[in-house]
Amino acid sequence: MPQKTLITPVILSGGSGTRLWPLSTPEKPKQFLNLLGPLSMFQLTFQRCADKTIYRDPIIVGSASHARIMKEQIQEVGVTPSALILEPCARNTAPAIALAALAAENPTDLLLIMPSDHMIKNIPAFQKAVQESISIALSRWLVTFGIEPTGPATGYGYIGQGEAIVGSTKSLAAKEFVEKPNQEKAEKMLKDGGYFWNAGIFLFRADSYLAAMEKYSPEMLNACKSAMSDGRTEDGFCYPDPDAFASAPSDSIDYAIMEKAEKIAITPVNPGWSDVGSWDSLFDICDKDLDSNVIFGKAETIDSSNNLIHSHDLEIAVLGVEDLIIVTHKNKVVVLPRGQSQNVKIMAQKLEEKD
Amino acid sequence: MPQKTLITPVILSGGSGTRLWPLSTPEKPKQFLNLLGPLSMFQLTFQRCADKTIYRDPIIVGSASHARIMKEQIQEVGVTPSALILEPCARNTAPAIALAALAAENPTDLLLIMPSDHMIKNIPAFQKAVQESISIALSRWLVTFGIEPTGPATGYGYIGQGEAIVGSTKSLAAKEFVEKPNQEKAEKMLKDGGYFWNAGIFLFRADSYLAAMEKYSPEMLNACKSAMSDGRTEDGFCYPDPDAFASAPSDSIDYAIMEKAEKIAITPVNPGWSDVGSWDSLFDICDKDLDSNVIFGKAETIDSSNNLIHSHDLEIAVLGVEDLIIVTHKNKVVVLPRGQSQNVKIMAQKLEEKD
Repeated sequence: MPQKTLITPVILSGGSGTRLWPLSTPEKPKQFLNLLGPLSMFQLTFQRCADKTIYRDPIIVGSASHARIMKEQIQEVGVTPSALILEPCARNTAPAIALAALAAENPTDLLLIMPSDHMIKNIPAFQKAVQESISIALSRWLVTFGIEPTGPATGYGYIGQGEAIVGSTKSLAAKEFVEKPNQEKAEKMLKDGGYFWNAGIFLFRADSYLAAMEKYSPEMLNACKSAMSDGRTEDGFCYPDPDAFASAPSDSIDYAIMEKAEKIAITPVNPGWSDVGSWDSLFDICDKDLDSNVIFGKAETIDSSNNLIHSHDLEIAVLGVEDLIIVTHKNKVVVLPRGQSQNVKIMAQKLEEKD
Repeated sequence: MPQKTLITPVILSGGSGTRLWPLSTPEKPKQFLNLLGPLSMFQLTFQRCADKTIYRDPIIVGSASHARIMKEQIQEVGVTPSALILEPCARNTAPAIALAALAAENPTDLLLIMPSDHMIKNIPAFQKAVQESISIALSRWLVTFGIEPTGPATGYGYIGQGEAIVGSTKSLAAKEFVEKPNQEKAEKMLKDGGYFWNAGIFLFRADSYLAAMEKYSPEMLNACKSAMSDGRTEDGFCYPDPDAFASAPSDSIDYAIMEKAEKIAITPVNPGWSDVGSWDSLFDICDKDLDSNVIFGKAETIDSSNNLIHSHDLEIAVLGVEDLIIVTHKNKVVVLPRGQSQNVKIMAQKLEEKD
């Protein structure tokens, strides 16, 4: 019965970060950029669910302000979404996923929730973990995929594992959700073991999610239901009703559902995952040249090592420099030391105030 | 008798260095660049001889390949040269100055030889030294202006002082010319005292120079004489005969004349001189902002100090970086540490070979 286990991918693309300034902007956030090569991370996300023997056509939930770029990038990779839902305003992930769950063909459909601004290097490992989670998801567990930590990162939320789940060899019950920790706590969790990074990737039945929302956030569910029933579909886009959707509380799936619901599972996985949350993390995950430089675009290096150069419009030449991040966008050139890329926000702000 | 002491400036602009790559190129070498502000160093050179009670209209000697840019830049500053001599090929400074001496209105005219790719900050100090040198130049001394060294530089030639000159309170006979020394020798000269940087600025009568050339390099003089008599004048340019000029030995005034001739004088002067021979020397001579950065063009800095940023076409934003040289030109961005700017030649060469 293969149709029983067909999974509906839900691609979340409503993010609007500026941590990769000057490339990422509210108009063109990270997921739509060609940061890693010819395809954007949004487009790369579809490659993870292209196998039609496993996946249905995806449901995409994004911001109405990105309608045009989403449509362009979807067409470029030849994807036909089963629904392309345009949020009239940002309400975080819990309502976004509710819209997708309400748009699913059948209430019992399995939804694989995937942010579209993350990188996954080892796709077979990821697919294997998804397959291993299907049976418990069908048994109404809300499955999270827990990334095995490679260090005491303070930039991610963590999920602590609990008891084994009867009938699963891989998945474990989740015991606790930990907010982005401080350094000390991150190191302790890494030492203690049994903690995983929360990558925001989930597998569950649509009705399991909606039932949990009915229990823990009924006003959110009602707002989303009204938004969908009062919305309209035009030119392949689904437009939820703006007033109804705006009345939904803004909250993440972690806060609104996962931290409260029962039957939360973790499937541990090590798929070479990164949220590519900064220029520093881009450097960390990318292949290096012989001098340990990461170069995207046109650059010449002499006696230079451990630099990240990202420049498609301009020609960069570096001599005798180490540990620099050099990023260009249009006629803008940004230079900073590696390890300080969280500060690009400060510069973006300064320039914005100036304009 | 003011007309007796009127000086004819001779502006040498045949240089073609690439030490300020990517800005300086063979097509547009240093002297024609807006390195220091709105005017090029070529244009700034005319400001030193603008006083018509002291100076006649200048004689300009440059490369035929720069005819267009010279004409444009001369027009921009409203200068009317008495002669604009276009060398058909490069033969170094001794023949270039001979062409100017032959083009002088009268054989006894005083010529003030000035390279057009140097910076002089204290123009009154320079003018004073010139005035103080007129009487001995009229008495047929070949006067060099010796820059008081500010450190044991190895990039300049030195002139050692000898006896005082009877009738001059400022100038001294030159004892020896020293090639670009090694560090040890430079330090010894600085310690011993009596040595000056050779800035390539000279004051002498046209006939004094031509007489010295007749004695020490007669074949050079003959070639230059033929080049001028067989040449032509058109559209305000003087074109020496190419074959005749090509037959002149290529040599500098220092080697061909100064190191050999008698009656060589030094007038010591401290005019805030620099040959602006590299990005590092540009940094050294320029005014700094509150964080000790030198910035030309559009740049924003946060927590960044002691950087040189030279960018007119592109917007530069630096965060947390120190002691960098960042130079842009058209769509090219060059980044290197301060103190290593001599290496830009290596990069220029690498990119040229690639093209």
